[in-house]
Amino acid sequence: MSGDTSLDETLARLPVGTLVMNLDRAGFPNCFMKGVAPLTPERRFVGRARTLRCLPTRPDIVAAQKNAAKPTPHRVAMDGVSPGQVLVIEARGELGAAVMGDLLAARIKAAGGTAAVTDGCVRDVPALAQIGLPVYAAGANATLFSNRHVAMAIDEPVACGGVLVMPGDVLVGDAEGVVVIPAQMAETIAAAALEMEELDAFLLEKIRQGAPLSRAYPPNAEMLAEYQNYRFSKRKL
Amino acid sequence: MSGDTSLDETLARLPVGTLVMNLDRAGFPNCFMKGVAPLTPERRFVGRARTLRCLPTRPDIVAAQKNAAKPTPHRVAMDGVSPGQVLVIEARGELGAAVMGDLLAARIKAAGGTAAVTDGCVRDVPALAQIGLPVYAAGANATLFSNRHVAMAIDEPVACGGVLVMPGDVLVGDAEGVVVIPAQMAETIAAAALEMEELDAFLLEKIRQGAPLSRAYPPNAEMLAEYQNYRFSKRKL
Amino acid sequence: MSGDTSLDETLARLPVGTLVMNLDRAGFPNCFMKGVAPLTPERRFVGRARTLRCLPTRPDIVAAQKNAAKPTPHRVAMDGVSPGQVLVIEARGELGAAVMGDLLAARIKAAGGTAAVTDGCVRDVPALAQIGLPVYAAGANATLFSNRHVAMAIDEPVACGGVLVMPGDVLVGDAEGVVVIPAQMAETIAAAALEMEELDAFLLEKIRQGAPLSRAYPPNAEMLAEYQNYRFSKRKL
Amino acid sequence: MSGDTSLDETLARLPVGTLVMNLDRAGFPNCFMKGVAPLTPERRFVGRARTLRCLPTRPDIVAAQKNAAKPTPHRVAMDGVSPGQVLVIEARGELGAAVMGDLLAARIKAAGGTAAVTDGCVRDVPALAQIGLPVYAAGANATLFSNRHVAMAIDEPVACGGVLVMPGDVLVGDAEGVVVIPAQMAETIAAAALEMEELDAFLLEKIRQGAPLSRAYPPNAEMLAEYQNYRFSKRKL
Amino acid sequence: MSGDTSLDETLARLPVGTLVMNLDRAGFPNCFMKGVAPLTPERRFVGRARTLRCLPTRPDIVAAQKNAAKPTPHRVAMDGVSPGQVLVIEARGELGAAVMGDLLAARIKAAGGTAAVTDGCVRDVPALAQIGLPVYAAGANATLFSNRHVAMAIDEPVACGGVLVMPGDVLVGDAEGVVVIPAQMAETIAAAALEMEELDAFLLEKIRQGAPLSRAYPPNAEMLAEYQNYRFSKRKL
Amino acid sequence: MSGDTSLDETLARLPVGTLVMNLDRAGFPNCFMKGVAPLTPERRFVGRARTLRCLPTRPDIVAAQKNAAKPTPHRVAMDGVSPGQVLVIEARGELGAAVMGDLLAARIKAAGGTAAVTDGCVRDVPALAQIGLPVYAAGANATLFSNRHVAMAIDEPVACGGVLVMPGDVLVGDAEGVVVIPAQMAETIAAAALEMEELDAFLLEKIRQGAPLSRAYPPNAEMLAEYQNYRFSKRKL
Repeated sequence: MSGDTSLDETLARLPVGTLVMNLDRAGFPNCFMKGVAPLTPERRFVGRARTLRCLPTRPDIVAAQKNAAKPTPHRVAMDGVSPGQVLVIEARGELGAAVMGDLLAARIKAAGGTAAVTDGCVRDVPALAQIGLPVYAAGANATLFSNRHVAMAIDEPVACGGVLVMPGDVLVGDAEGVVVIPAQMAETIAAAALEMEELDAFLLEKIRQGAPLSRAYPPNAEMLAEYQNYRFSKRKL
Repeated sequence: MSGDTSLDETLARLPVGTLVMNLDRAGFPNCFMKGVAPLTPERRFVGRARTLRCLPTRPDIVAAQKNAAKPTPHRVAMDGVSPGQVLVIEARGELGAAVMGDLLAARIKAAGGTAAVTDGCVRDVPALAQIGLPVYAAGANATLFSNRHVAMAIDEPVACGGVLVMPGDVLVGDAEGVVVIPAQMAETIAAAALEMEELDAFLLEKIRQGAPLSRAYPPNAEMLAEYQNYRFSKRKL
Repeated sequence: MSGDTSLDETLARLPVGTLVMNLDRAGFPNCFMKGVAPLTPERRFVGRARTLRCLPTRPDIVAAQKNAAKPTPHRVAMDGVSPGQVLVIEARGELGAAVMGDLLAARIKAAGGTAAVTDGCVRDVPALAQIGLPVYAAGANATLFSNRHVAMAIDEPVACGGVLVMPGDVLVGDAEGVVVIPAQMAETIAAAALEMEELDAFLLEKIRQGAPLSRAYPPNAEMLAEYQNYRFSKRKL
Repeated sequence: MSGDTSLDETLARLPVGTLVMNLDRAGFPNCFMKGVAPLTPERRFVGRARTLRCLPTRPDIVAAQKNAAKPTPHRVAMDGVSPGQVLVIEARGELGAAVMGDLLAARIKAAGGTAAVTDGCVRDVPALAQIGLPVYAAGANATLFSNRHVAMAIDEPVACGGVLVMPGDVLVGDAEGVVVIPAQMAETIAAAALEMEELDAFLLEKIRQGAPLSRAYPPNAEMLAEYQNYRFSKRKL
Repeated sequence: MSGDTSLDETLARLPVGTLVMNLDRAGFPNCFMKGVAPLTPERRFVGRARTLRCLPTRPDIVAAQKNAAKPTPHRVAMDGVSPGQVLVIEARGELGAAVMGDLLAARIKAAGGTAAVTDGCVRDVPALAQIGLPVYAAGANATLFSNRHVAMAIDEPVACGGVLVMPGDVLVGDAEGVVVIPAQMAETIAAAALEMEELDAFLLEKIRQGAPLSRAYPPNAEMLAEYQNYRFSKRKL
Repeated sequence: MSGDTSLDETLARLPVGTLVMNLDRAGFPNCFMKGVAPLTPERRFVGRARTLRCLPTRPDIVAAQKNAAKPTPHRVAMDGVSPGQVLVIEARGELGAAVMGDLLAARIKAAGGTAAVTDGCVRDVPALAQIGLPVYAAGANATLFSNRHVAMAIDEPVACGGVLVMPGDVLVGDAEGVVVIPAQMAETIAAAALEMEELDAFLLEKIRQGAPLSRAYPPNAEMLAEYQNYRFSKRKL
């Protein structure tokens, strides 16, 4: 794994659960977003975090944004997505309004974004499913953004699903949900997860054949030795 | 759009999200039921609200209903559904018991009802999926109605999913959830939503081709002019 | 129904909703697990309860379990599953960590277990779906077990989804969720539910043909008589 | 106890807890309002329920009430309070806005009302404490009524704190909360509670002197006999 | 009202409820913090917002703050409080750990701060009550800050109790809770609230004397005329 | 500190917050019960845990307990309290019914118990305040125990307020709430907390006199030296 593309390809094949386990071992127990689930048919994604922070709406701030003769942070966040980025929208767990709908998702997709993730709600769910962008959210609610939210800042640290997300962090999603990998740890975690996947596949087969957990998970010395032999023989071929 | 059938046909093609946006613009921000999701394969429906109000159960009221020598409001609500109606059951967000099961859903269907909607739970979920009636609820719970609820009144205003529903209101449902349109606004909202759908389809295509939100959503003057040309040329054909 | 296999075969065909209704009539209104839903494609199961009780984690207890030179209760619970058992894991409704993942589910399956049920979360959801074991849970969360839980006891009475589960109770699951049948009542309830299914199928057909609930549900004397005739004629054939 | 005044005097001395226990024995287990607590220094009250039902607000209904050239149900509910009544306001557990403040509470007091009870919030809490009216609510929130609620109906059955309240029911409140006694049961329950209080006072003294629960609560035959002697001797004096 | 001291003196006498009502009339319906209640004997305060934003903790960020050879944002926030400021701590509604204890509250007090407000928890509650600083919070929890939080930024816009707080906003607290007044509106709102207080006191007296709400609240023309006379006569004295 | 009495006397003077901080430093971050608050005027207590585990009620288990010709675990738990014990009742966070009332609290008091603690509700709140026993609970609800609970086991490990409690653990309560100290750590934690209290009192005084947190909390080298001098001089006296 030398370049980001290679790293991304590796991450794209790794289950979120395995990445979480390796982050836990590395001292990062709180890395899985709670209550943030896939809402679209597309699920797997890898992306670098671009963040948008939404706060409770207030008329004077909304008016100031309108009078500012420039796009709101909400639109800037989406227009400015770079290829390979995932837009992470902090919504304070608010379930009473949406943070985005199908047209905004289409823009993220067109800009090369790999996904959108929020601990709030999204809208236009049937159309969203046609865009081809993985969208993870706390729920669906067609109520308009402006009834609860005002977009306030871009590329600040945010909280999403109870996890801290720094701009540039690597996020990976699958049917289970979303894991946040601190940027500087992505290579290490990916490598460790890749090894763990190989071992786990071996152990799964053993368990299916009847090995009890007391031998197979965690693997005892005998089982580990068997695994080393298996790996060795596999590589000889 | 002159008759109800035509209105219903129009509404049947409109996404809930687009109807909600037009209601918001018309001054009705709180029209989407929160936490009320489709539980059956059938989803899209249009219906006029028939309402049933359930309250916490109490033995003397239950006994009085039994001794009354006439069907309970619960059964009357379902038997009396007219073609084109959706039964809306206020359940106070109670997740500890069901408000209906498959046989009652079958009756609503047979009576010509277009859907059942509740902010409580439903039961007999596997069988419910065979009835052919769209059912929207806050969840599934097989615990019997009588453990938590007593049906109290029919065709009163009710709260469902945090939204006021007046008898006769027009409800529309799709995979996103349910929108409540005040009866007197249904024509106006449907017409506005139809126009918005046409514009949004045009803008979506532009966004897919790479137009940023700063030009496309909301559309700036240039984009709107392009749309008018497109519409004009399309109609000439 | 004289043997357990026959009982299990009967229960395997009965909807959870119908079992719940018969338990309610028998004086057991609180038998359906609240908020415990199927997370895997496999759903229907019948099993005898083997229980595992998890409590909030604490370092001294974890250390004691590690130093004990024997497997933890967590692993013993799964290794010791007998054919026909369902593992019921009390997790106090904790949504912040998982109680098991794919390898442990594979062990339950290999040991002959029929399902795993918890009011907490599970992890490795995509892989879990490949194991072939019905898994019911309150949600998915990849955060590791040890962050919130310590396994404390096996085969004690537990609470799961707000329902008491005694070791040996008969649990049945389908798309609706999970019902807990006290062991000594399983035969009676199964027999009553079987009869109810037959009647309900008859009534459903009547309702589909237009019979109002005032005649069909609950069935009035005339409808019941018609049913008796139908049953009699059917049996003559 | 022959008149209502006498009944009210009796009820005014009885703890809510004792009334709840006697209602439970009479088959009414669900009679204590959940999450409805006293917010003012005054607490004890006895009153007949006058009910007000609030629903989620909607602009067309609010406009219709304004154009109706008569007071809204909200104001009618309070102006029409009769001496001895408690106003019970169904607020759907909504914690985001108030259902009343100090001026409305003053009106209830001036009209002879004995208390106000709601499963929503109240406002003007410091001033409310000066009015001299017991107020029970789910919390304090100064946000205005009209942001969430529209008053819809008076003297209908309502749900409050998870309990059914029929107009005319007898409500009693103390520091513990509020109990709802069906009107037709008030005399019986009061009499039974009065007796229970006498017995409990005797048993409490015994427990304080060291009697274990196995003898004193529930009282065994010996303890009951001792109580009968005590009562007899007390009455002789 | 020409200077801030005069404004503060006025605000210090105005109930939170009255300020909220005037903000609502001015188009700011969402200005009262939900679920943020006084935890100390001192309650009334007026202060300009200094803000601190806390996010979910993460080991690399904590390590970076420790290695930075300067105080953490958490300590800087408190050390840098200026006289007349209230420290507003965004805690994402987290109830599982505290954001401050008695020593930190003492520092805010010593620095001239007028209060501390958070939608999280505080600790050292008995000692906190001795400091003499009004503290408003969502609850008490002695669990240490670092278990859930990392302080991230000072003097950014924050969300607290569902309300947007901009640095420099004017906050007022009393037994009811906390209202947020946008800085530029404080004078106007204070003046309007002062007038409303005078009118309300008059109306309260009328209601106590028996005036129905239909005449007194909102006051009809006759009542308003009477009030003008009363004001006029009072001022002549 | 050589005997338990001495330990108890020390603990009785230590704030819960200081004990929690020392447990956190010793590797026990999760030791403070969440959402368990004092409901009686008496608050401070020290006690060894006697535990009672309550589960969701079920008729067959209730009947078996009645027919067993011995007291239920519920009553045994209270009758068997030894002097110096605190009864900890696991109630699964259930807010819909009580786990005890005034007579049972009186028994705990008479038996020498120092407190009762539950993550459920208690009843008879006004009378409970007269018993003289500190009672900590998640709330007040007069609904009877048997509606939701069945007592199942005594002196097993339990969860209460999200914290593991082992029989024999040392619990301390004050106005802030309840801390659970593993039995084997009580001496060490008490000693460390005592020292911390002394230091904190010194630092508090410094902060009150104007020392910033950057010098005083955590204390820098200069401040610590000053403290050592102060201690030394104090001891000389």
